Amino acid sequence: MGIRHFIDFNDISREQWTALSKLTGEIITSPGDFADCCRGKTLATLFYEPSTRTMLSFQTAMLKMGGNYIGFDNPGNSSVAKGESLRDTVRIVGCYADIIAMRHPREGAAYAASLFSTVPVINAGDGGHLHPTQTLADLTTMMKEKGRLDGLKIGVCGDLKYGRTVHSLLKALSLFKNNTFYLISTFGLAAPRYILEEIENSGNKYVECDSLEKYLGEFDCLYMTRIQKERFASEEEYERQKGVFVLDAAKMKKARKDLIVLHPLPKVDEISEEVDLDPRAFYFTQAKYGMYARMALIKTMLETPFDPPAPVYPSDSGIRCPNPRCITNSEKKLPPLFTESQDGVKICRYCDFRAKW
Amino acid sequence: MGIRHFIDFNDISREQWTALSKLTGEIITSPGDFADCCRGKTLATLFYEPSTRTMLSFQTAMLKMGGNYIGFDNPGNSSVAKGESLRDTVRIVGCYADIIAMRHPREGAAYAASLFSTVPVINAGDGGHLHPTQTLADLTTMMKEKGRLDGLKIGVCGDLKYGRTVHSLLKALSLFKNNTFYLISTFGLAAPRYILEEIENSGNKYVECDSLEKYLGEFDCLYMTRIQKERFASEEEYERQKGVFVLDAAKMKKARKDLIVLHPLPKVDEISEEVDLDPRAFYFTQAKYGMYARMALIKTMLETPFDPPAPVYPSDSGIRCPNPRCITNSEKKLPPLFTESQDGVKICRYCDFRAKW
Amino acid sequence: MGIRHFIDFNDISREQWTALSKLTGEIITSPGDFADCCRGKTLATLFYEPSTRTMLSFQTAMLKMGGNYIGFDNPGNSSVAKGESLRDTVRIVGCYADIIAMRHPREGAAYAASLFSTVPVINAGDGGHLHPTQTLADLTTMMKEKGRLDGLKIGVCGDLKYGRTVHSLLKALSLFKNNTFYLISTFGLAAPRYILEEIENSGNKYVECDSLEKYLGEFDCLYMTRIQKERFASEEEYERQKGVFVLDAAKMKKARKDLIVLHPLPKVDEISEEVDLDPRAFYFTQAKYGMYARMALIKTMLETPFDPPAPVYPSDSGIRCPNPRCITNSEKKLPPLFTESQDGVKICRYCDFRAKW
Repeated sequence: MGIRHFIDFNDISREQWTALSKLTGEIITSPGDFADCCRGKTLATLFYEPSTRTMLSFQTAMLKMGGNYIGFDNPGNSSVAKGESLRDTVRIVGCYADIIAMRHPREGAAYAASLFSTVPVINAGDGGHLHPTQTLADLTTMMKEKGRLDGLKIGVCGDLKYGRTVHSLLKALSLFKNNTFYLISTFGLAAPRYILEEIENSGNKYVECDSLEKYLGEFDCLYMTRIQKERFASEEEYERQKGVFVLDAAKMKKARKDLIVLHPLPKVDEISEEVDLDPRAFYFTQAKYGMYARMALIKTMLETPFDPPAPVYPSDSGIRCPNPRCITNSEKKLPPLFTESQDGVKICRYCDFRAKW
Repeated sequence: MGIRHFIDFNDISREQWTALSKLTGEIITSPGDFADCCRGKTLATLFYEPSTRTMLSFQTAMLKMGGNYIGFDNPGNSSVAKGESLRDTVRIVGCYADIIAMRHPREGAAYAASLFSTVPVINAGDGGHLHPTQTLADLTTMMKEKGRLDGLKIGVCGDLKYGRTVHSLLKALSLFKNNTFYLISTFGLAAPRYILEEIENSGNKYVECDSLEKYLGEFDCLYMTRIQKERFASEEEYERQKGVFVLDAAKMKKARKDLIVLHPLPKVDEISEEVDLDPRAFYFTQAKYGMYARMALIKTMLETPFDPPAPVYPSDSGIRCPNPRCITNSEKKLPPLFTESQDGVKICRYCDFRAKW
Repeated sequence: MGIRHFIDFNDISREQWTALSKLTGEIITSPGDFADCCRGKTLATLFYEPSTRTMLSFQTAMLKMGGNYIGFDNPGNSSVAKGESLRDTVRIVGCYADIIAMRHPREGAAYAASLFSTVPVINAGDGGHLHPTQTLADLTTMMKEKGRLDGLKIGVCGDLKYGRTVHSLLKALSLFKNNTFYLISTFGLAAPRYILEEIENSGNKYVECDSLEKYLGEFDCLYMTRIQKERFASEEEYERQKGVFVLDAAKMKKARKDLIVLHPLPKVDEISEEVDLDPRAFYFTQAKYGMYARMALIKTMLETPFDPPAPVYPSDSGIRCPNPRCITNSEKKLPPLFTESQDGVKICRYCDFRAKW
């Protein structure tokens, strides 16, 4: 029932989520009861690209349980600059730390690390692929504030095409029942086909629309996201679209009294600053709950028996994942791993890239 | 009597200073008595520009009381690069830490942070504006080594025009009585008019002179400062003036036996290295006392009831502080705040810039 | 019998090594017994150039004894950028920390720091000169896995000309008896003359050869090293030589069953990845032992009475070490110090540069 590695939110079972959620609730209620439960334990925060808030959240989580941390947040300063492989770095850090939280610009990097690690690995973000502890923060907040993850009407607004946190959230909520998702975006940034299929297959419902106001009055929860400037083809494209779906006080008047507004943060212009004062704004609370959820996760993983089998280092078969952002295309000597679906689509085990060939 | 935020040394009362000074003295005498007083508490060191010594001093202060720290010291690595506002950063860090020490290149940044923070904020330097914990270090050293802050003859040498620490020190000592300040600088780097007025108005005295030796034999305390290369109009100007007011062994022979020499550090060439061995050189002791003073400050602030009212987020009135280095001119949506003096001068509440318009 | 500073492995006596080695063994056996022995103590990691693994190893060592750490790893962020001298930095950090581990790009930097420091200094690498805690890691692994440091047949392969860790290892093992060193390199990267003389003078033996396989079947220990790209005159030269001495599974078949393979890490291509799975591969264990050895070192140094005499700051005599990488040629006002051998060779006390003049 424990958790060995935490790479993809969907790797954990419904029972594991329930246990994690219960523990998170206990920590939120009585954080002091957990002040010493990780005494003498060390978390390594290996941040191959900077993400200050996520890093501070993990470090605080460890400190609040009496543990401590080591790590780096500056890729140019790491041994990587001397050509060290990811797997060697992970093996060495495993000599120092009891658990690793890794952020990496390459898709599939955390999974690759977990193949070779002698200690548990948490994915703290692997490129545009996954960020499962953000999903933990999101679900924890919904669970705590709405009391359930079933039968909710959830607006999701912003960049639904590239938004990693949105994809993870929709996939995670598809594990539950009777939810309706209102997918609010411009045409160019609509949710990808495979996400819509996953919602359908799960028996939940979705509605696509291009207006934030249209269904706003029905939502139990509104999940706002940033439109990342770097995702746009041009500066003009960015300027034209960025302001389209802004949540402000006027729109909030049309929303229900028990709405909760979430945001993975950092936010830029998509939420007007006056909304911060609205009691329905829960994004700062969400950041706090995210830290508590990370406490529960770290505690659970450190208590899970971890008797690593001798790591397997398959040699290079020469096959390559077609995704240029996949970790297997920058790290040498990583074994290519694919699963094949019934209709002949190969799915990369690292980055989930799907292709026929 | 507690301290809620610590932005400007002159914000604290004479009574608060007395309490802080007394506590600092107790810590210096028996640091071991305080080894656990911040157990389980977290300090966030948010350094938007690097200042290694100041950061290490704050972190050590927290560690010596059994607390711990999180933070960043690399602006490029922070969420700021993604466009996050100062107030969002402060709100989020307030979810993780119990107290914030902030260094920022913009004038007024720490005050701006205190407007939105749900935890106490310490100004660890805001551009060329204020650096009040350096003033704590300075006064603590004078108090500890001279036994009083009244009736002293104090030489202040170096860049008196731009020197932030000098301005803070002179303003702080003006709260006490019967001090005489010897303001030693070249003509181009003399103390600004408003500082001289503040000394006069307080009933203390000052003497301006352009020689370090002239009154050296009378000083109880000599406060040396660095002439910052970046303050000069040109490389030539710097080379011509930098060596003019150097303290060396020869000059020290003319000084009193009970003189104490202070310096905010880092020093470059303004004190000859042989002076380091003179028992009257107190600048390293001053660095140590600064750390103890920060312990007293953090402890006091953590014990001060802090029940934040709902933060007020006024909308932008469109008025702007004319000071280009003011935080209100780089952060969007910061409420402009001015006080107006009797003669119609507007004073910016963030950066203290004064102008008539 | 204690250790005051740890700058050069050869500064410590045979008795000091024996005590350190014994303590390291005790820590490896029962790390929990040492979980609180440095409670309340602070290590400063001053890394003037990045070296992630070494820094994490030191920090972990301190944490595992209940202590804590402060420090920097980013030269651009340090006060050095403001022109602060190494000796001022060390004096100030000595106000905060109980012990310093320093990494610096300049040869002799740690020795220079030890001249002025009021707390013990550990050399964590000074340019291409020394890296004595790596040598501790190496000897600890040999001692633990082979049971002795005498009478061993040790292959040393790679860049023997510039390899700092190899030089330190050979010098250290020369303090013991009846060892035979097989020095395996290309002609251009052979071990320097003075190292060979030191081995000869100690009564140990060496064999130079340009084949990894030739004597492989005889080795008790094989010490592999990376050929640092930056040591080569050109990209072509690097490409031509880098692959010559690669250890792979085929070669491992010719080696003894009780061989241990060591490597200071990071490794790049000089060991094939399949060797990682060979039970004779001990380089990750070596990294772990290195951390334990640092624990023993820090504990020993913190327990050594350290009553600093007033530091001596001799003035500049104007003589300069001819080595452009010597710390005395970048730091102003460092006293030149030389010893002179019988045949008139001057040896710089900082960087060990030898010249007649």
